[in-house]
Amino acid sequence: MAFGWIDEQAELRRRAGLVRTLRPRPADAPLLDLAGNDYLGLAHHPEVVEGAARAARTWGAGSTGSRLVTGTTGLHAELERELAVFCGFEAALVFSSGYTANLAAVTALAPHGTLLVCDAGNHASLIDGCRLARAERQIVGHRDPEAARKALRAHEGPALVVSDTVFSVDGDAAPLGELASVCREFGAGLLVDDAHGLGVLGDGGRGAGHAAGLAGADDVVVTATLSKSLGSQGGVVLGPARVIDHLVNAARTFIFDTGLAPASVGAALAALRLLRREPERAARARRVAAELHARLTAAGHEAVRPDAAVVSVRAPSPEEAVRWAADCRAAQVAVGCFRPPSVPDGISRLRLTARADLSGEQIERAVRVIGETRP
Amino acid sequence: MAFGWIDEQAELRRRAGLVRTLRPRPADAPLLDLAGNDYLGLAHHPEVVEGAARAARTWGAGSTGSRLVTGTTGLHAELERELAVFCGFEAALVFSSGYTANLAAVTALAPHGTLLVCDAGNHASLIDGCRLARAERQIVGHRDPEAARKALRAHEGPALVVSDTVFSVDGDAAPLGELASVCREFGAGLLVDDAHGLGVLGDGGRGAGHAAGLAGADDVVVTATLSKSLGSQGGVVLGPARVIDHLVNAARTFIFDTGLAPASVGAALAALRLLRREPERAARARRVAAELHARLTAAGHEAVRPDAAVVSVRAPSPEEAVRWAADCRAAQVAVGCFRPPSVPDGISRLRLTARADLSGEQIERAVRVIGETRP
Ligand SMILES: Cc1ncc(COP(=O)(O)O)c(C=O)c1O
Ligand SMILES: Cc1ncc(COP(=O)(O)O)c(C=O)c1O
Repeated sequence: MAFGWIDEQAELRRRAGLVRTLRPRPADAPLLDLAGNDYLGLAHHPEVVEGAARAARTWGAGSTGSRLVTGTTGLHAELERELAVFCGFEAALVFSSGYTANLAAVTALAPHGTLLVCDAGNHASLIDGCRLARAERQIVGHRDPEAARKALRAHEGPALVVSDTVFSVDGDAAPLGELASVCREFGAGLLVDDAHGLGVLGDGGRGAGHAAGLAGADDVVVTATLSKSLGSQGGVVLGPARVIDHLVNAARTFIFDTGLAPASVGAALAALRLLRREPERAARARRVAAELHARLTAAGHEAVRPDAAVVSVRAPSPEEAVRWAADCRAAQVAVGCFRPPSVPDGISRLRLTARADLSGEQIERAVRVIGETRP
Repeated sequence: MAFGWIDEQAELRRRAGLVRTLRPRPADAPLLDLAGNDYLGLAHHPEVVEGAARAARTWGAGSTGSRLVTGTTGLHAELERELAVFCGFEAALVFSSGYTANLAAVTALAPHGTLLVCDAGNHASLIDGCRLARAERQIVGHRDPEAARKALRAHEGPALVVSDTVFSVDGDAAPLGELASVCREFGAGLLVDDAHGLGVLGDGGRGAGHAAGLAGADDVVVTATLSKSLGSQGGVVLGPARVIDHLVNAARTFIFDTGLAPASVGAALAALRLLRREPERAARARRVAAELHARLTAAGHEAVRPDAAVVSVRAPSPEEAVRWAADCRAAQVAVGCFRPPSVPDGISRLRLTARADLSGEQIERAVRVIGETRP
């Protein structure tokens, strides 16, 4: 029977304790949220919410078509201009999601004959982009510029090094400066995904590329999402104007996808303007992360030192990670729970996100609950 | 130099007259829009716009995380329930876009060893899904159930037949009933993309699957977008509950993507409720398409008889198609222009979309302008 094999897989998942289920949250949850990626606490900010509502009223609820047909509005263009200026790049292109932005950037920048050099810890969307590209792929060790150098040295022709700036699972940062040097040594391009860096790292949240002095470089392309620090939805690719023009002409997830909804464009634009006006939000998110990490470590947890606003805490097993996260939730603290197959190394962990708007009292409560529910 | 090859490609495109540029539309364009996919004229409907604004206020501007972490709200669950009931399926799962919904459905439903049988005219997102899947692929002729039968007969093991219900370029429909019979003969699954059918075809716009008597079948999965007839953004997969559960557990573009923004969920929900209350909108869109086609044909244009709400008109060459569309635009009529590489057969055309809310006077004006600007 069609789809009969699904039941066997479901049974295997059930036995392994790896079943995922959706738990819709209510609008007014009393939960303390350390699971979402709303690093600057902007998703519910009145200006951001009004940015969404106003945009829907002015421009419609949907963009109605591909951005090459009817889906580009003046608002999309405004957001692109302001994102490019803020992050220090010549041009920017907005997508319906960070996922489709990554698929676009990787596939359009790695034509046949290109070598893709990929960090082993890259995000699923970069990995899928690499699988879709008609290029040769080489996976190299996690945060290992020397391994990237070796791969580039052995290759003739165009090459692209692809990495997250801040890895989503452990919150550790890529050695961007070294990666850029290695790329330049061989004339390779560097493509980095700043989903967890934009709004958190760099001067006033200008991102990891800016922090590493790579903004505006003609051999660097940065992707990011509008769905994390900017509290909205969507993705963006930042880079030289010729790269952006190329994406407009060649990226399938740009050409054949409906443009980002005006409400999400408006929300991201409002969030960006807020961040420009209140640049201290970025540093606050980093400070909250450092404090969370310090307190968790002091309490004896095995937590990874955060390079941005993600704090990862190891759990002994997938089952215990799930139980731990559930117990936290029962105590009104929401934490992320990463386990196979969503972790590259098979290690389960709780994943906490620092938010710029967390109070000292909230941090204390979170650490207490995590300690009390510990396996 | 990194990305040096981009300039050569740009030059080739320029010489071939295939350069694409973004033209942001203003909020109050006096344009008559026959280019967008807002088939029911709902993207600007006050109830739909208010659905977006209210959802942003209640639930935030972004969903803040993967739907498996913090990104599922009660509103997402409500939309899924209502979409499933409306279209006649057991369950539904909402995605950030139709593109990611298609990537999810194809990759998760075609594990290693599966044969994917794909119509040659399928949408880019289905094609990319097939490329990403670890399955064997066979492309068969356009709208050719006999070719699908041949492919299935030659294969042992699970198989999935993949097709658009209404093809986006020419607006012609797939022979769903025959495809389903062929699938059943061999125990294969049928996956169809109803992006251009939902809201237009079937009783009250319940879609092509419903119209073909396939809704709720245990071997049929339907994908659709929220970005066309429903005037919003997002995608949905409809099917048996076990298939939906499987996607929650296995689809990378579900697990590793931020949930659809609440504003887009709210807009789609408002549009769906409006369509339920005013089911005649679907039939009106089809009637407008038929009238457009009749008038264009009477005026001597080579137009494809529409099976839904897309009317395609042949142009002599890519350059003339671009010029034709530009002249229409100058006369305040926006039409789509499809040309290589976005057309499977290399034939350039104007692509008109019928909207349920076009008046007789507007249809007349559109046909007159298209005639006057004809190459
Ligand atoms: C590193 C990284 N890149 C890309 C994405 C995808 O972005 P989006 O969710 O906006 O599609 C995510 C998470 O969702 C991510 O963590
Ligand atoms: C047939 C078809 N499927 C899928 C999509 C992708 O849907 P979305 O634009 O909502 O991502 C489109 C168009 O955009 C389409 O025409």
